[in-house]
Amino acid sequence: MAVHDDNIDIAILGGHLAGTLITPSTRIPGVLMVHGWGGNRKQYLDLAREVAALGCICLTFDLSGHEATEARRESVTREENLADILAAYDVLARQPTVDPSQIAIVGSSYGGYLAAIATTQRPARWLALRAPALYMDNGWRIPKRQLHTDQDLIGYRLQSIAADKNRALAACASFAGDVLLVESQFDNIVPHETLMNYVDAFRRAHSLTYRVIDEADHGLVEQGARDAYISLLVHWLEEMLLGARGRVRKKTSAVRGSDLSEAGLIRK
Amino acid sequence: MAVHDDNIDIAILGGHLAGTLITPSTRIPGVLMVHGWGGNRKQYLDLAREVAALGCICLTFDLSGHEATEARRESVTREENLADILAAYDVLARQPTVDPSQIAIVGSSYGGYLAAIATTQRPARWLALRAPALYMDNGWRIPKRQLHTDQDLIGYRLQSIAADKNRALAACASFAGDVLLVESQFDNIVPHETLMNYVDAFRRAHSLTYRVIDEADHGLVEQGARDAYISLLVHWLEEMLLGARGRVRKKTSAVRGSDLSEAGLIRK
Repeated sequence: MAVHDDNIDIAILGGHLAGTLITPSTRIPGVLMVHGWGGNRKQYLDLAREVAALGCICLTFDLSGHEATEARRESVTREENLADILAAYDVLARQPTVDPSQIAIVGSSYGGYLAAIATTQRPARWLALRAPALYMDNGWRIPKRQLHTDQDLIGYRLQSIAADKNRALAACASFAGDVLLVESQFDNIVPHETLMNYVDAFRRAHSLTYRVIDEADHGLVEQGARDAYISLLVHWLEEMLLGARGRVRKKTSAVRGSDLSEAGLIRK
Repeated sequence: MAVHDDNIDIAILGGHLAGTLITPSTRIPGVLMVHGWGGNRKQYLDLAREVAALGCICLTFDLSGHEATEARRESVTREENLADILAAYDVLARQPTVDPSQIAIVGSSYGGYLAAIATTQRPARWLALRAPALYMDNGWRIPKRQLHTDQDLIGYRLQSIAADKNRALAACASFAGDVLLVESQFDNIVPHETLMNYVDAFRRAHSLTYRVIDEADHGLVEQGARDAYISLLVHWLEEMLLGARGRVRKKTSAVRGSDLSEAGLIRK
């Protein structure tokens, strides 16, 4: 373990003593959590506390247009929200106890979509996307809300989309870290087909873990579904951290094409 | 692992985002190192770096009357030097990453003598004394240098002294943590008899590890002797930390009376 020295003064009555503090480099992974459209950072607190207990530093934050800046809900753009994520990432990566080579980005829905894109602008070792949404590339700087009237998102999300035809999928196609993809079985916002587009895009991933939460809706309204998601993410991250800490390192649950039916870890 | 939340602001263009940073309590042991009379903190740097690499924060410091305050060498008292140790201890224990319930004090010669006394005023879980000196209790506030003319220290250190007749031995008798005692085989300042007084005093210690460094002098002039001491201390501390971290917890090398001849771990 690397160590470093700091010279310090120790105050005593009438003066001070010269001291040297020798400290080990105990940097730990950082986990950035990006909420979905209409969500907030507090939704991630339970999850963040469980993840922090694994020995990580977690950062949750409110995207522009949410909570304190809700007044901007109708005008905020994808470009602005992506900039939010990068700003939060930089704050996390700069924490003195965070190892910037060990950052995970966790996102849900709209936050998952932007999290995928963020990996093209900041290094991420791990990427966990729950019910990641998809939007067409055009209109990047128009209000996000307006996309829902300008774009046929329902139809778009049911299509098979090649990775090079969408900015988020292209980001996934170039991502070389470990991936967790979580689908809600009864998701009427982000359908199974969208998840399959993501699965197909992660062709360079170091590992891919795809899971379905049974009977869950898009927003995980039921406590049981939220608990299942927390359990899924915590166990996946635990496995990833074990690997990163050098004890095990293996491909996990890579699921492709016809194997998908076996992928539901927590199906009852 | 306990975690805690901190609300932070994340600066973005034209404003900021509300964030919450969730951090695990990754507090680690602290090790305070007290040099002997005429020594300095730099003598402990090699050792401190090895100990820090075990995952501890180490503090070495110059006692009053040494280095920058060498002008006070002739006047400094035991009382002042004990106050130095307590001040340094408090700085170490207040480090945000130090677990104040896991502090080790390591001292040599005069520094070992004072380290033993310091355990009556500050909690220490581990105590490592190398060639700890002994002084008579009287004259506590007169210059330390003067003790060598006022007291027959050579004779005193050859005597068998009951723990209740000496402040440092009394401190050892009430110490309930784990102890490492290291003797130099050819020590013409602190003889074997003094070490035996310390061994006998540690009757409440949770464990006692007594070792002799073969052919070593009091000051460990030879590099080989210094290396042996570093190795001894690092291995002992490693075992102690393993226990503290909950993996093993056992009495180690408790040596009493007639077993002492077997105690020289690193005799050639």
